[in-house]
Amino acid sequence: MNNFEFHNPVRIVFGKGEIAKLKGLIPRDVKVMLTYGGGSIMKNGVYDQVKEALQGVDVIEFGGIEPNPHYETLMKAIDLVQKEKVGFLLSVGGGSVLDGTKFIAAGALWPGEDPWEILTGKTEFPLLKALPLGAVLTLPATGSEMNGNSVVTRVETQEKLAFGSPLVMPKFSILDPTVVFSLPDRQVANGVVDAFVHVMEQYLTYPVDAPIQDRFAESILITLIEEGPKVLANRNDYNAAANFMWAATMALNGLIGVGVPQDWSTHTIGHEITAFHGVDHARTLAVVLPGMMHIKRSNKKDKILQYGARVWNITEGTEDERIDQIIAATVKFFESVGIQTHLSDYDIDESFITKVKNRFLHRGMMGIGEQGDISPDQVAEILEHQL
Amino acid sequence: MNNFEFHNPVRIVFGKGEIAKLKGLIPRDVKVMLTYGGGSIMKNGVYDQVKEALQGVDVIEFGGIEPNPHYETLMKAIDLVQKEKVGFLLSVGGGSVLDGTKFIAAGALWPGEDPWEILTGKTEFPLLKALPLGAVLTLPATGSEMNGNSVVTRVETQEKLAFGSPLVMPKFSILDPTVVFSLPDRQVANGVVDAFVHVMEQYLTYPVDAPIQDRFAESILITLIEEGPKVLANRNDYNAAANFMWAATMALNGLIGVGVPQDWSTHTIGHEITAFHGVDHARTLAVVLPGMMHIKRSNKKDKILQYGARVWNITEGTEDERIDQIIAATVKFFESVGIQTHLSDYDIDESFITKVKNRFLHRGMMGIGEQGDISPDQVAEILEHQL
Repeated sequence: MNNFEFHNPVRIVFGKGEIAKLKGLIPRDVKVMLTYGGGSIMKNGVYDQVKEALQGVDVIEFGGIEPNPHYETLMKAIDLVQKEKVGFLLSVGGGSVLDGTKFIAAGALWPGEDPWEILTGKTEFPLLKALPLGAVLTLPATGSEMNGNSVVTRVETQEKLAFGSPLVMPKFSILDPTVVFSLPDRQVANGVVDAFVHVMEQYLTYPVDAPIQDRFAESILITLIEEGPKVLANRNDYNAAANFMWAATMALNGLIGVGVPQDWSTHTIGHEITAFHGVDHARTLAVVLPGMMHIKRSNKKDKILQYGARVWNITEGTEDERIDQIIAATVKFFESVGIQTHLSDYDIDESFITKVKNRFLHRGMMGIGEQGDISPDQVAEILEHQL
Repeated sequence: MNNFEFHNPVRIVFGKGEIAKLKGLIPRDVKVMLTYGGGSIMKNGVYDQVKEALQGVDVIEFGGIEPNPHYETLMKAIDLVQKEKVGFLLSVGGGSVLDGTKFIAAGALWPGEDPWEILTGKTEFPLLKALPLGAVLTLPATGSEMNGNSVVTRVETQEKLAFGSPLVMPKFSILDPTVVFSLPDRQVANGVVDAFVHVMEQYLTYPVDAPIQDRFAESILITLIEEGPKVLANRNDYNAAANFMWAATMALNGLIGVGVPQDWSTHTIGHEITAFHGVDHARTLAVVLPGMMHIKRSNKKDKILQYGARVWNITEGTEDERIDQIIAATVKFFESVGIQTHLSDYDIDESFITKVKNRFLHRGMMGIGEQGDISPDQVAEILEHQL
């Protein structure tokens, strides 16, 4: 096992009816800005529950944060925060609203010229301050509710970039699984696959003799495989919703990634599909991961075989045969929840692959992945495998 | 799954050589009291590493905290803390030193007449303040390094009582697995069994459809079963030591216990064996747990069978036959690491059982366990089964 630090002070408040606890968690001595997305919280009752709990609190609102939140939109929120002297941000929505809110939190106090620098890292300033924030989660998927990560898209330049800081970890996150009851199939499926691939990025690397981390990762994968279809089949199954929601949180709160190598190249490549073609984040991961497993079958062999044996019970055949079966099982799972795994399923052709390869070359990203050996040429191979 | 809150802000610093990081973690604006036990830290090099990292810090020391730390000793430390105006406590030792340090932290600022009230709960005061503390762990076992629990023994009255508060969670805990290299067999075995039973107390209850919690618990159990014997066989196996250490921390940091029923009656009963006969804590758990599984085989049936199937691969036979096999496998594991499971192994006879039963009756503890149905008579039955 590698050395590590783990520090996750996010307070999780989990269960049906728990949104009412917001009342005791929200600060009362500062102005609060409630951030939200396209308005689904008006229809599913969450907005009313939140407003009820916020009675007596000085609140302004900022809605309209998009999926893959836009830098352009978030800059308007930052203006409002500064003008209104907001002291606390409350994200009411899914991972995109929360990621956007984290960027607002850091951007509002950014000493540089343009908060975009927080994402590019091209700045003389370290990130030293952010407004405190809390979250009411309405969609299990990204794990953003229990980490300090944020991904933001700049429409103008078709770029999707990430930053991370303990400063933007939520002070609290309220997770009421009944929010799942009103989600469309598409969002449930996206959430299941997103969480699944978060685990894979921290697990499907090379062994370092870390059995707790491996088994916890496998526990989350098996739970998603079992509970995801239950949620899709019966949106009112509370336990299935709760288990799906907790699995998604545990998938990316840092715990399964301590002391082990991490990959994240499936995300890095997938972000380009969203940046150029606007495909849902989870769907891009479902496209890239099978290609990644195929092209990196040699480097990742030990962990692919362990994953196959423990998660899918695949133990027969040569190593290569097993790896093929394991990739097929993974693809079948993604497709069984309604998520396609080829670029053509999203009307994307070969010209996209050239654009991605050139962008990676241009950015000097000559080797990504846990071993730093996925070249722009291999990125192209991975995508070609999934055409 | 039941509703829950989870909030664990302890910073874990894990790995070989990490004690040096103490330098950046210790506060420099207050007087620090370093607490320790019987002096093993002088022999294994930990004391020297700690002192090196504390150069320039205003430090006083308090040694001699016993296994099952004594109220009488800790009261002397509280006097010293108050006299010297100590502002931060640094526990350098195992779970007993750390539990004792937590009591010192709370007791030093206790507004009542006697800090013993923190343990009995017979007081008008809530626990609202405690000195901040940090830990350098020298013995994987209790999980105290990542929780707010403490157990203290009062010699005078032969009582062993627990308290818990987020106020006494360590600000940081440094876990360097190389401390395991110099541990005697007895302490390794105690640590393995202690961590194992911590998991069982949160797992072996009744099902509430919480697959993440169940599988995480099973992951820790399997890891202890695999890694414990490796540590005993080769004390210099770094990865085995690291995995054992991380398993013990994960066993009792609250995570596997969220949203599920918890038992803790094995501990409640085991504490009496220590209180009356001074038997090592872990050994008392190894005595009580098999009796508990036997007597509560009907209430705990579903989880015993799940534990047997997933942890021990026991799937053949009638339910009762399987339960017998599962108890036998558990006993065999405890005994394989050198821990005996009968009262007679510790020279304890039937008269002890009467004393415990009377004490439970006297304290009004008419029903313990996750279902509140273990009467003083059943406590006696459990112990009689292990005579």
